[in-house]
Amino acid sequence: MSDKERQFQSNIRTDLAIEAKEMIAPQQEKDIPGVESSSYEEEGVSIDHISITTPQAERAMNKTMGNYVNIEAPGLREKNTDLQDEVSNIVARELQKIAKFDDNTELLVVGLGNWNVTPDAIGPKVVEDLVITRHLKRLVPEKLGPGFRSMAGVAPGVMGITGVETGEIIKGIVEQVKPNMILAIDALAARNLERLNTTVQIADNGIHPGSGVGNKRMGITEDSMGVPVVAMGIPTVLDATTLVSNTMELVNNNAQNQPQSPQNNPSRGVDPSQINTGQGGLGKPNKQVINQALSPFSGEGQTLMVTPKEVDRFVDDISEVLAGGINVAVHPRVAEESAGKYLQ
Amino acid sequence: MSDKERQFQSNIRTDLAIEAKEMIAPQQEKDIPGVESSSYEEEGVSIDHISITTPQAERAMNKTMGNYVNIEAPGLREKNTDLQDEVSNIVARELQKIAKFDDNTELLVVGLGNWNVTPDAIGPKVVEDLVITRHLKRLVPEKLGPGFRSMAGVAPGVMGITGVETGEIIKGIVEQVKPNMILAIDALAARNLERLNTTVQIADNGIHPGSGVGNKRMGITEDSMGVPVVAMGIPTVLDATTLVSNTMELVNNNAQNQPQSPQNNPSRGVDPSQINTGQGGLGKPNKQVINQALSPFSGEGQTLMVTPKEVDRFVDDISEVLAGGINVAVHPRVAEESAGKYLQ
Amino acid sequence: MSDKERQFQSNIRTDLAIEAKEMIAPQQEKDIPGVESSSYEEEGVSIDHISITTPQAERAMNKTMGNYVNIEAPGLREKNTDLQDEVSNIVARELQKIAKFDDNTELLVVGLGNWNVTPDAIGPKVVEDLVITRHLKRLVPEKLGPGFRSMAGVAPGVMGITGVETGEIIKGIVEQVKPNMILAIDALAARNLERLNTTVQIADNGIHPGSGVGNKRMGITEDSMGVPVVAMGIPTVLDATTLVSNTMELVNNNAQNQPQSPQNNPSRGVDPSQINTGQGGLGKPNKQVINQALSPFSGEGQTLMVTPKEVDRFVDDISEVLAGGINVAVHPRVAEESAGKYLQ
Amino acid sequence: MSDKERQFQSNIRTDLAIEAKEMIAPQQEKDIPGVESSSYEEEGVSIDHISITTPQAERAMNKTMGNYVNIEAPGLREKNTDLQDEVSNIVARELQKIAKFDDNTELLVVGLGNWNVTPDAIGPKVVEDLVITRHLKRLVPEKLGPGFRSMAGVAPGVMGITGVETGEIIKGIVEQVKPNMILAIDALAARNLERLNTTVQIADNGIHPGSGVGNKRMGITEDSMGVPVVAMGIPTVLDATTLVSNTMELVNNNAQNQPQSPQNNPSRGVDPSQINTGQGGLGKPNKQVINQALSPFSGEGQTLMVTPKEVDRFVDDISEVLAGGINVAVHPRVAEESAGKYLQ
Repeated sequence: MSDKERQFQSNIRTDLAIEAKEMIAPQQEKDIPGVESSSYEEEGVSIDHISITTPQAERAMNKTMGNYVNIEAPGLREKNTDLQDEVSNIVARELQKIAKFDDNTELLVVGLGNWNVTPDAIGPKVVEDLVITRHLKRLVPEKLGPGFRSMAGVAPGVMGITGVETGEIIKGIVEQVKPNMILAIDALAARNLERLNTTVQIADNGIHPGSGVGNKRMGITEDSMGVPVVAMGIPTVLDATTLVSNTMELVNNNAQNQPQSPQNNPSRGVDPSQINTGQGGLGKPNKQVINQALSPFSGEGQTLMVTPKEVDRFVDDISEVLAGGINVAVHPRVAEESAGKYLQ
Repeated sequence: MSDKERQFQSNIRTDLAIEAKEMIAPQQEKDIPGVESSSYEEEGVSIDHISITTPQAERAMNKTMGNYVNIEAPGLREKNTDLQDEVSNIVARELQKIAKFDDNTELLVVGLGNWNVTPDAIGPKVVEDLVITRHLKRLVPEKLGPGFRSMAGVAPGVMGITGVETGEIIKGIVEQVKPNMILAIDALAARNLERLNTTVQIADNGIHPGSGVGNKRMGITEDSMGVPVVAMGIPTVLDATTLVSNTMELVNNNAQNQPQSPQNNPSRGVDPSQINTGQGGLGKPNKQVINQALSPFSGEGQTLMVTPKEVDRFVDDISEVLAGGINVAVHPRVAEESAGKYLQ
Repeated sequence: MSDKERQFQSNIRTDLAIEAKEMIAPQQEKDIPGVESSSYEEEGVSIDHISITTPQAERAMNKTMGNYVNIEAPGLREKNTDLQDEVSNIVARELQKIAKFDDNTELLVVGLGNWNVTPDAIGPKVVEDLVITRHLKRLVPEKLGPGFRSMAGVAPGVMGITGVETGEIIKGIVEQVKPNMILAIDALAARNLERLNTTVQIADNGIHPGSGVGNKRMGITEDSMGVPVVAMGIPTVLDATTLVSNTMELVNNNAQNQPQSPQNNPSRGVDPSQINTGQGGLGKPNKQVINQALSPFSGEGQTLMVTPKEVDRFVDDISEVLAGGINVAVHPRVAEESAGKYLQ
Repeated sequence: MSDKERQFQSNIRTDLAIEAKEMIAPQQEKDIPGVESSSYEEEGVSIDHISITTPQAERAMNKTMGNYVNIEAPGLREKNTDLQDEVSNIVARELQKIAKFDDNTELLVVGLGNWNVTPDAIGPKVVEDLVITRHLKRLVPEKLGPGFRSMAGVAPGVMGITGVETGEIIKGIVEQVKPNMILAIDALAARNLERLNTTVQIADNGIHPGSGVGNKRMGITEDSMGVPVVAMGIPTVLDATTLVSNTMELVNNNAQNQPQSPQNNPSRGVDPSQINTGQGGLGKPNKQVINQALSPFSGEGQTLMVTPKEVDRFVDDISEVLAGGINVAVHPRVAEESAGKYLQ
């Protein structure tokens, strides 16, 4: 990758491994060393597995080594309960492949994010819809019946609300609750508008500083927590800088009268090598200039987020899909019945 | 204004009269025929009065004829209770100048917007913080005591929630409640990031279709409602198209190595006449191209909104400031005490 | 009924026709003139039909003439999604028998109650979970597809919030929206603890002043609204006076060393004729004395409500059951799929 | 105290020390060994200090040894912002006397209770209104300015939501955050209706199992947490059993034709020695019988709570009063300005 490409990419923020991969190899014609991937479709849902297996690939992708699953269902943007059920079941299946819940599981689900900010509230909302059982298993197991495993759930808030780094709160709770696995749910930033509220990413390597809609300064990983951390994330916002960069690329490309190929569509991966920096075009979008334009807010460490106006409905719908999937994956008794019924 | 300028402006959306004026006459050196304005500062708060007095000016400004007050306090973005009190009192004073509440006033406050979407929830939030008295004045006036006038308040929701055009709901309520004045509160779209959550616009000509964060298809005006409608609005979002256009102008200007004058700063008024469309630059931002880039959402009639991440705190704070100002303006008894105490 | 019986009953408040009947004829051995009833069970759910057919019966029952359906599922207090689905479907069926929705239906659902008070929030919560279609049928019918009928929904708030009598707000909306049927949802007061959050009453005669958790001063009936009004209510509270009266009866009965028959159990119907007012017992519970004890609140026109501490979960669950039932009854397309999937 | 008296008291639940004292010594004519108290009035607000100094007194009072302050302002039930400010300042002063905040203070405020249940939501609501500073003092102290001390705040939820004993969650957070003092806010149960939402209790001995609206199984005390725990509580509910017992006493007393003395008024302390258990009266309220009447809920470990219908407004108002008082007590900078302005 040339310096030019790197500079371009630094304008773009994405928490999705699949988008990091698209930005390096948009046309999928070339392999990225250290990155393995496979992809298939299932009734309107795309499922991609991406493994980042070397430190070199980690640097190139700007994503931590580990295994990522990307589940994408564009139809979720329309109210469609059949599709919601289907995605719920796919989430359950893919989560179970990674987390391998069994009767010894003591799961702690952590709903990250700020419940007062709609696009950041997915984590807390998912936790509210879970079938929480840890206390019942300990205190009145006979009342719970078979087929339910131990699940606890907390929504620790964000630093602006609590005055405490979120990772510290979780660390403290983990040391008391002593789960043998953590599932952390978070709202993410994506590069592509199409992926907002239609995509679920599950990863086996936890939550890393700087990811998500809110600012995290401490990771939530097996290293920091002492038990495996599965991460589940849903993009709900674009960073404003990303939106502007995306659009300027497209404008630039058009200015050069290039026929627009699918790879140039900024709502999918854009091939930075296609960007002509020469005469007649805008050249590379300049991060400094973009940031200057956004400075009334970014100057205070505040950032701008871009969301569809229907964000509240999207967030409600996807939260139910995720909670349904988790309930099915964790509790065999729920799985026997339809997942849909537990969407709440 | 040339066609070129007009095309540029069509990319930009603002619900603020002051921004419409800045776009036409950014340097304030030239008068706009049919537009009268005055401006002064008061302890860190700018207060502008703008009157649009002719149909020609209405077309040029793309704002309905009438009187607008713009109250702008950049410091509101920081938590500052003294400033909040000051702005509350200025809002009360300017509102009273326009609305002229007296003991015969029967006010209906209408909180427009969707309570489930944080930046669109200002209207409903303001209504929740009002000192509502209509029922007490009618049923138990002795309990209310002197110094309170009749105020009712409703939050009618948005069409996506109710299935009914909001204007129809309000019209029906007005015909039953028979107020002699309506005060409609709405969240607005601005052009300039700096104005989000720091600016209050009060106007004497109601709410017009297409304004505000949500989609309105029917105006809420004296014509449609039969009684005077005062509008109070607060910008909480930028349209994504506006953000991109703003930024591209700045980038374009920089690409031409023009020293950046204050008037070029896209976070204030940009002078479109300064935009060189010639060699080396990007030319005019092209609305079609921008919209294409944003199409995954705009294609469905959905639009993207841009907000700071701290939108929830901003919205809470400004709602209290507005409710405090309204309570002081309407109820002499509240005015006797400090407005601040009624911020809730 | 003797004067003694009447005085006793005046302490008791219930919005349920089935409880009014139990209080008059607890042992079901005697007919009440002008009241027809039938009852059957269906997999753990009791379904009672009660018709009040004469003015005399109306006075005796203290319930307006009309047809009432009472659906009671004690198991709803436990989280049980199968039972929730079943009750949803029974609600759909019984609602359809009364409302006879067809392709000409233009339904307006009104969610009564105060969204800020958990046990009074059922109406607004149900409306939030409905498949609202009126605007789509009018504006983009091709997008909606077949199998959906016209449903609008509003939550008008309560007088303490709006300053306006709720019936006036609804009347105004009805005159604009012009539905041909209203379905009004309300939280009710019951006499029997067991019925809280486990019972649904559907009636074909609207909502009458004084019923429900909140205070209504104007009815919502075909007379006042001009179109048929179907009422759906769920008891979520006991009045404090009712709780005390219930308990004192039981204590009194015990004080007389009567073996307690099932009919004496105050958590079901108590036979007032069994109450010995003579020596050794407490005599009739005295409403005046009870009210005096509760006076710190009732003196101000405020009343005390009794709820289980888990009221939030119960209210969420039953709201989804009702919304699911309404969606199935109104929209054939939803009925084709399982009701459960539309529980939200 | 006779056995009879003890049995009577076992029906009554109160979390307030002042009510425990009233039940033992209603007429205040007799001293209770090991209990010291003083009382004064200040512009419509009663302030009582009660110290329980011996294990014998602890058992007699059924309240843990320690110092309690009771601040009671009946006028709070009416909207009265002057009185709210006054109570806020008294809370600040009394809290400071007990907590002795200084520049070395590292305070963690814990908002106990279930945010989904209105009368149990006071703790979480107070935390939302606090001026949280811990993160700013650590990361950007220059931005905060002088006059602010370190305050963090969490709302850990309740066991039914999280699956974890609340005390464990707090313990874990304390071990990470390492405060040198905890202030725990909780909603309480009172005996007397008049005290609901009008009374604040501050104590220097933490939160004990079984107190509060929710069920706590583990104390939050200096013993369990390792740092001093100040408790601040506000009664928002009566237990249903308490309500029934209160009322039956009054009825019983009246049945004996005793002229009602102030001490017999069950909305203040009732003198149990006055209860005639003999002929003609009801005798002692029998807890077993009362509980049987309430069994549909209490049988499942669920309990009934009694609240005024206006509970949402009362809870909002009192939360702001408490948050205002805490902000003033902790932050000298806030104290310099009026407390009222920080009520939010």
